[in-house]
Amino acid sequence: MTLIVQKYGGTSVADVGRIEHVADKVAAARRAGHDLVVVVSAMAGETDRLLGLGKGISLRPSAREMDVLLSAGEQVTIALLAIALEKRGIAACSFTGAQVRIRTDNAHTKARILAIDEDKLRDTLAHGSIPVVAGFQGVDEAGDITTLGRGGSDTTAVALAATLKADECQIYTDVEGVYTTDPRMVPEARRLERITFEEMLELASLGSKVLQIRAVEFAGKYNVPLRVLSTFKEGEGTLITYEDVTMEAAVVSGIAFNRDEAEITLIGVPDAPGAAYRILGPISDAHIVVDMIVQNVAREGRLDFTFTLHRNDYTQALDILEANLKHMGAKRVIGNDRVVKISLVGVGMRSHSGVATSMFQALSQAGISIRLVATSEIKISVVVDERHLEAGVRTLHEAFHLHEPPQQDYLPQPAAMRKGGATG
Amino acid sequence: MTLIVQKYGGTSVADVGRIEHVADKVAAARRAGHDLVVVVSAMAGETDRLLGLGKGISLRPSAREMDVLLSAGEQVTIALLAIALEKRGIAACSFTGAQVRIRTDNAHTKARILAIDEDKLRDTLAHGSIPVVAGFQGVDEAGDITTLGRGGSDTTAVALAATLKADECQIYTDVEGVYTTDPRMVPEARRLERITFEEMLELASLGSKVLQIRAVEFAGKYNVPLRVLSTFKEGEGTLITYEDVTMEAAVVSGIAFNRDEAEITLIGVPDAPGAAYRILGPISDAHIVVDMIVQNVAREGRLDFTFTLHRNDYTQALDILEANLKHMGAKRVIGNDRVVKISLVGVGMRSHSGVATSMFQALSQAGISIRLVATSEIKISVVVDERHLEAGVRTLHEAFHLHEPPQQDYLPQPAAMRKGGATG
Repeated sequence: MTLIVQKYGGTSVADVGRIEHVADKVAAARRAGHDLVVVVSAMAGETDRLLGLGKGISLRPSAREMDVLLSAGEQVTIALLAIALEKRGIAACSFTGAQVRIRTDNAHTKARILAIDEDKLRDTLAHGSIPVVAGFQGVDEAGDITTLGRGGSDTTAVALAATLKADECQIYTDVEGVYTTDPRMVPEARRLERITFEEMLELASLGSKVLQIRAVEFAGKYNVPLRVLSTFKEGEGTLITYEDVTMEAAVVSGIAFNRDEAEITLIGVPDAPGAAYRILGPISDAHIVVDMIVQNVAREGRLDFTFTLHRNDYTQALDILEANLKHMGAKRVIGNDRVVKISLVGVGMRSHSGVATSMFQALSQAGISIRLVATSEIKISVVVDERHLEAGVRTLHEAFHLHEPPQQDYLPQPAAMRKGGATG
Repeated sequence: MTLIVQKYGGTSVADVGRIEHVADKVAAARRAGHDLVVVVSAMAGETDRLLGLGKGISLRPSAREMDVLLSAGEQVTIALLAIALEKRGIAACSFTGAQVRIRTDNAHTKARILAIDEDKLRDTLAHGSIPVVAGFQGVDEAGDITTLGRGGSDTTAVALAATLKADECQIYTDVEGVYTTDPRMVPEARRLERITFEEMLELASLGSKVLQIRAVEFAGKYNVPLRVLSTFKEGEGTLITYEDVTMEAAVVSGIAFNRDEAEITLIGVPDAPGAAYRILGPISDAHIVVDMIVQNVAREGRLDFTFTLHRNDYTQALDILEANLKHMGAKRVIGNDRVVKISLVGVGMRSHSGVATSMFQALSQAGISIRLVATSEIKISVVVDERHLEAGVRTLHEAFHLHEPPQQDYLPQPAAMRKGGATG
């Protein structure tokens, strides 16, 4: 018998009708013979409603009390889903984070899971009942309620799957899986059957719409097979696992992009130890997150240093650097807040050379000039003018044949897993 | 320093504005130097909303899951009130029933409190912080969430006051206290400054609009001084204590009435052991609650047996008795579902004779005929035709001078208590 952890997000349990639908899916998986643990979020809109009440009273509510407030949201959903399962003759038992003893640190509103007491879950499973667990919440050593931060229900599901050594952790959402790129931009975008944890992490800008990045990291760390699928449409979704499951991965798995980028370049920075630190130190101090960093070799003792950041932070960062120009010894600072980033991601890049060349060629043929390049082991990112975003993504999607299924075959899936997927 | 437990019901915390108002009241009491524990209900309408969600899924939801569902309501309020207090610079800390460890039995939806772990509350108080506790909810031995039934927040407050040996338990509500009778019927009805636990219990029909009867019983049992006051108007409310606090109680404290009564009489029941049991056994089996029972002495080996019950149960009870007529040996059964009950209540009746006579005289002068009479130590109830309800209550209110303050003086209140009341 396989053990599957299923997680349903806020839109999947947005109202009584959808909760009934989720109960139907869970009941079907149970009747197919699986052991199940189900994790649910608050009903869509509920967390915002509660946040609004709290903020309506105080603009700086204490984190401890906000956690008490927000965690009431999932508590409602677990009870409703358990009731819906019982109505279908499926034994179920709801648990808050505190009841399962999802032990976290005491960093209210962004707590990290330390340990999960699996006894209660094992007991419930042994009685043939389905534990319905509140996502997003836990309890600290003092017995205070904590929350894991937005999207933390994914993390709860993966943590439960890791603790129980589940065969699969299924994240039900309103998309059908992970796509080669955003289907709203490229209608030919294709759902990936499989993707590796590393690719998923590098595809952050695509992936974050589907899964919490922290949950993916967690799943990778504990080797929990993770499947993303749709609550509303039947399908196998996308399975996220380690590379070695596939015979040979596609060269490029997907194309991610970030719209709201800005770039800043410091011209003529003296090439001396600590140059980068002197530039980025004050930026970090202002809690501005820097994305790409590009530094070319110095010429005549001076170098140009470029980094990208979110467009919203552009003006503040420029101001900081202008004020520090003398300290950094730079000649001047220039920038552009109308740029975007396009990234090719694929573990196949490790063994296939020439991906960058093909990428640059395709873009060049489309008349798109590249402003910046940065590469990692399985990712190549370019920054281009924002007016080239759509053409750039489409061009690359076509150039790398992402609309076609990969030619390499996957190893046959283990039977249990195929079954698990089919019930979802 | 006095320790006061304050409880605010659903209408007192119905929205963010009212929660701010409650926070103002709590802050004022705190600044007046009192130690405080505050108990709150779910925001008005919230329990019904949650009930609606649950019933929307299943007409027979399991009691365990309904308790998980409903208890989310108070969890929201404790967090919001704690946030509102913190905004006012008042240290506060919210606790769910499970966190305070309000230990109950496992009778979900109508659990009884077994024990309260006072350490957490004492600790919080010792740190100068106000515990804000979720009413209505507890936790059983297995760690499952339980609820105490509707109005259970009053019981929570009294139980906390008893455990902590608080100087006073203040129940804030939308009425200004306990009145000599319903002010909507008799505009001259007067707020009672004091009333005894026994009178309060006998005044059930008046009192139940103000306080949960179970909470009054609990307060009486543990000798917790209980004060009912208004959240929205300043005032001393009504203090409910033991009789011996007053020099001499008024003969009649108040007039209660029940509108929806019905009476059923069995004619010619053989006067043999077990007669009453044979009549009422099947009625109890059908979960019909019987109120007054009147049985006069038998004549010629036969007696007439009358009882009253809620009008809604009238037809069912009649059917049951008709079906059992032979078994009971009764000649026939007659009834009337257009009757009401009027009750005079007062501990003074114990030492004052002639109350019944005055009552009957007043009703007679008003042309109201009495159908049934039943008496207890501190209460006289009559059943009359429903068209006489208003005239009956007005007549008696006037006959016993209830619109005037009692002539007997109360003992001076202890200073602390006066202060406690004044801050409320």
